[in-house]
Formats: sequence, structure tokens, C-alpha cells
Amino acid sequence: MKIYLAGPDVFLPDAVEIGRQKAAICAAHGLTGLYPLDNAIDLSAPDASRQIFCGNEAMMDAADAIIANLTPFRGAGADPGTVYELGYMAGRRKLCLAYSNDGAAYADRVARFMEVTSESERLVDVQGLTVEDFGLVDNLMMIHALELHGCPLVTPAKMPIDAWRDLTAFETCVRMAAGRLVAT
Amino acid sequence: MKIYLAGPDVFLPDAVEIGRQKAAICAAHGLTGLYPLDNAIDLSAPDASRQIFCGNEAMMDAADAIIANLTPFRGAGADPGTVYELGYMAGRRKLCLAYSNDGAAYADRVARFMEVTSESERLVDVQGLTVEDFGLVDNLMMIHALELHGCPLVTPAKMPIDAWRDLTAFETCVRMAAGRLVAT
Repeated sequence: MKIYLAGPDVFLPDAVEIGRQKAAICAAHGLTGLYPLDNAIDLSAPDASRQIFCGNEAMMDAADAIIANLTPFRGAGADPGTVYELGYMAGRRKLCLAYSNDGAAYADRVARFMEVTSESERLVDVQGLTVEDFGLVDNLMMIHALELHGCPLVTPAKMPIDAWRDLTAFETCVRMAAGRLVAT
Repeated sequence: MKIYLAGPDVFLPDAVEIGRQKAAICAAHGLTGLYPLDNAIDLSAPDASRQIFCGNEAMMDAADAIIANLTPFRGAGADPGTVYELGYMAGRRKLCLAYSNDGAAYADRVARFMEVTSESERLVDVQGLTVEDFGLVDNLMMIHALELHGCPLVTPAKMPIDAWRDLTAFETCVRMAAGRLVAT
């Protein structure tokens, strides 16, 4: 059973090592992890970004499930590139799992980045746009997609010291995926 | 032909009016716009967020295409909720279109929010994570998904004064969708 390993992990300076660790955790549970950086891409090619896209899409099409890292990325919410992949896999009717190493409510996290005020019973940001306030960890589309197309988002009880490298919540996802994929 | 109208537009104070305008533009081109706020949801219900998700997913399943508003939202990139929907529609093999009212390159936009430095031939943000630098307007997954599963991202030559309400780029998408959907 193949699991697509999505996340902004690919942007870390030690991205290859993180991928190796994630694949090893998958293997320990009898699963095969597919990591974007496993695709050999010539980054100096003029169409490098398209090659990366096509490689990732082919990996997703080959996978039975996705485990997405939704830890907040450059702001209050998850990495849009990773979220695209979660949506794509939900659309392909694959098993969807994800974790975030920051379990705070989305509205509380927005308030870390900008002033959030209350206006006629809704929370608004500095641009006057509503801040989603359902007590969920991120946008409701991802949270309920996981619940209805896979397993609920996994978050740690306490944010790990190194939120980009702690793989405890990731391993919980792998364990759940192994249980679900073996059962089908 | 039905078009799902995705975007953080639903978070605007005049969200209903924007939806009305978008649906009117669709109708003028012979298409039917489906807007998330058309679903009647009781926001005081304990499962309101799940109801919204299920309503949006049913709308997407009923639609032939998506036009996503990828104008940057609370940071350098697109709204993750909208991006989830774009991914979902690509996964369902529906026609994918999108616009962004900010046509700047992603790497330049990140630099508006935080210090970006150059390190061993890659751009990195304040956390040491690579900043994608392919000259694209947003993450390569969305940009190439549009190119390969629909029409390339539409951006204005100049950012409109009211980036949340200017519908010129949106109407370009509608025109392209009408051409593609009638042709099939």
C-alpha cells in the first residue's frame, strides 16, 4: 500500500533526510511512502516546475492514500501547495489523512499575525474579512474532508519544540492508515 | 453548464452581493454560477461547519467547472480553503480555472511579509524554509494544475484598486470557460 507524503517538508534545508525518516516509519508499518523529492528533476531545466508538478501528480495517482503535513506555513494556515494535494486526493477518492503540529484554533492563530476584532457577531481581520471561528484547527474544508474522506486531523496535545521535524503525529497517521488500508 | 464559484469572497462583508454579481456575469455568458452562500445553512447549529462542507462538496460534484479566486489571502499565497476546492475539482477531472488580482511573483510577495535571503543558491524565509522561485504567481501545484487541467491562471496587467471586488479577471475566466464548455 502506497502513501503519498505531502507537506512543506520539501522546503526544509534537510528535506531529503525528513523524507527518508518518513519513508522508514511507513516501512515499519508495512507501507510504502512516496515522497516528492524521490522524483529526479533537473532544477535547471526551463520547465522544472512543470516537471515537479507532473511527478507529484503521477505519485498521487499511484498512491492509495495521502498523509499531509498541515502545520501552519508562513502564516496562520496550512501550505496551499499541500492543501491542493489533499483536495486532489479527496477528489480521486483516495484515503485522506493529515496532521498539524500546531493544535491551536485557527481564529487564535490569525490573532498571532494581525489584529482580529469582533463586529456584528463575527470576527474580522484587518482587511474586514471574516475569520472562521468554528473552533477548528484550520479551514473547515480541510478539517471535514479528513473526517469524511479519511481520518480526523491528528494534532499533538502540546506543540513539539521542533514543529517542522517532530514526527510523532505523523506516525499516528501512518498507524491509522495501516489499519484502514489493511482492513479494506 | 454549471460553474462552482470558489474564493475567499465568502469572507467579505458584502459576500452575498459579490456572489450575485458573479452569478450575473455567468448568466450573461450562458452559464450557471453555483456560489457557496446559496446553500441555506443554520450557522447556530452545532454541526454548521460540517453542513457548509457537505453543501460545498455537493455543489462541486454538481458543477462542470470551477473558477477559483486565488488573490492572496492573509499572507503571500492563496486561501487554503479555496485551494482545497481547486485540488478537489482537478481530482474529479472537472475543468479548472482561476484568477488572482495580484499578478506579482510569489517570491516577491513573500518578501513583503518577511525577510527573504539568499543561501547556497536558494531563497529562504525567516524560518530557513525555501521560498519557491520559479517566477510563478503562486505555488507550482496550483499554477500547473490550471495549465494542464483547464486554463492558465488569469491575472490583471495592473493590480486593481479594489482587489477583492474587481471582477475583470473573473469575467475573463467566465469567457474562457464558456468557450471550453460549449466546445466539448
